[in-house]
Amino acid sequence: MRLVTTTEDLRAWRRGAPPTVGFVPTMGALHEGHLDLARFARSQNAAVVASVFVNPLQFGEGEDLARYPRDLAGDREKLAATGVDLLFAPAVEDIYPPGFSTAIDVGPVGEAYEGALRPGHFRGVATVVGKLLHLVVPQRLYVGQKDAQQSAVLRKLVRDLGYDCGVTIVPTVRETDGLAMSSRNLYLDERERRAAPSLHRMLRRFVELLKTGEPFEIARAEAAALLEPPGALDYLACVDAESFASLSALRENSFVIAAARFGRTRLLDNIWLPQ
Amino acid sequence: MRLVTTTEDLRAWRRGAPPTVGFVPTMGALHEGHLDLARFARSQNAAVVASVFVNPLQFGEGEDLARYPRDLAGDREKLAATGVDLLFAPAVEDIYPPGFSTAIDVGPVGEAYEGALRPGHFRGVATVVGKLLHLVVPQRLYVGQKDAQQSAVLRKLVRDLGYDCGVTIVPTVRETDGLAMSSRNLYLDERERRAAPSLHRMLRRFVELLKTGEPFEIARAEAAALLEPPGALDYLACVDAESFASLSALRENSFVIAAARFGRTRLLDNIWLPQ
Repeated sequence: MRLVTTTEDLRAWRRGAPPTVGFVPTMGALHEGHLDLARFARSQNAAVVASVFVNPLQFGEGEDLARYPRDLAGDREKLAATGVDLLFAPAVEDIYPPGFSTAIDVGPVGEAYEGALRPGHFRGVATVVGKLLHLVVPQRLYVGQKDAQQSAVLRKLVRDLGYDCGVTIVPTVRETDGLAMSSRNLYLDERERRAAPSLHRMLRRFVELLKTGEPFEIARAEAAALLEPPGALDYLACVDAESFASLSALRENSFVIAAARFGRTRLLDNIWLPQ
Repeated sequence: MRLVTTTEDLRAWRRGAPPTVGFVPTMGALHEGHLDLARFARSQNAAVVASVFVNPLQFGEGEDLARYPRDLAGDREKLAATGVDLLFAPAVEDIYPPGFSTAIDVGPVGEAYEGALRPGHFRGVATVVGKLLHLVVPQRLYVGQKDAQQSAVLRKLVRDLGYDCGVTIVPTVRETDGLAMSSRNLYLDERERRAAPSLHRMLRRFVELLKTGEPFEIARAEAAALLEPPGALDYLACVDAESFASLSALRENSFVIAAARFGRTRLLDNIWLPQ
């Protein structure tokens, strides 16, 4: 696997690259969920590019960009083992040179839920991925289902701006007890870790109740009761998978989404329907 | 010359296109200035694509999108004569399908001068050209110097977002009396048309005075006095060609810009330094 740290070297590689390139953008600190994206991309493309770039634009004030976990050596080893051809790990100044001032905003799809909690977050995500797509020029972009709203934002970006690139949403990888893989799981103490899988059980129960015809709010309340302490629910909702608009019933191509705090750690999970 | 009206047909053509493609985006109602862009592109590329698309996003409230001049048959004939290979003239719904909600904003470079007068205008320009670049995938984009701020916005777009595309700013084409070519010149009555070339004389005098070391404000006042009635000056200024930040002295790579109203018609002109 080749490590490339400048856009210039990336472009030089790209000019001689095979006809199909799959792309897996990440912020590093890789876990099995990320590696699954890389393996998925590997199975579908002649070449695979992964990026590790902790994107300052998607951190808000008070969010700790400086303390975000970084382990390029470890990430490099893990990605090489999945068969990735090129790891792109640029410096911040290479992606955002002095005077950089452009933003891509996809609108309402990034405004509710995580977007409401983190103003500007999805603008930062859309801007960096919009730029990375120009540098990598992939035929297919791979994103994780776990970050459902992010996946909707990136599909919107690609569709609205006519990038000649497909977007594949790769199913969430879970621990054996059902907890969705996340870098944040490491922050959970023992009690929080024990309670955390109840987030997924709550989602499954909500879907089950809705499928049996239970009224929406009654189903939501009954499912929400399954979240184990110290879990504190931020939201349990149903949204259109394209627009991320709130729904009050199950529908084709929707996400049932949830966020909850376990101590100081906030966890997300979702179920994509139909699946 | 081939006429293509859907993004699908454009992409199909692009897949078999020669290795270098030059691109001239326009809103139609073509005059010699536009045709010069096409000829310039013709001389530098194996294939040339021009687009005619009256972009609703760059019109503000109260600006008359519906009355914007349209003459696709005439434009087609003129472009064919310059040797353009493909004319892309999509429907509004093809570029902005229902639910379209994405915007590209290049920031301060589009906020003063024309951007202050037309809020959202340059966001609309950046968004449509940002998308057209994904559809046409040119190696080089050709824009007219007459719209100086637009040229700065598009250079910023391409640079900030890392499009793999050069931007060529093509010098303004003028009538024999010095008036810059513009679709709007047709709206001038006889007296306005006689006075209009004084806009360019004013710009030249301003540059001349600054070069002799005249203090900025004195030079500006002396030059501004050359604008002939009924011309009414909106601004006469000097800006950095990259950032469009106001300057108070001539500098390398700056524009001296002016806008003036002649009756109900607003005209722009500029001088690019050094030239």
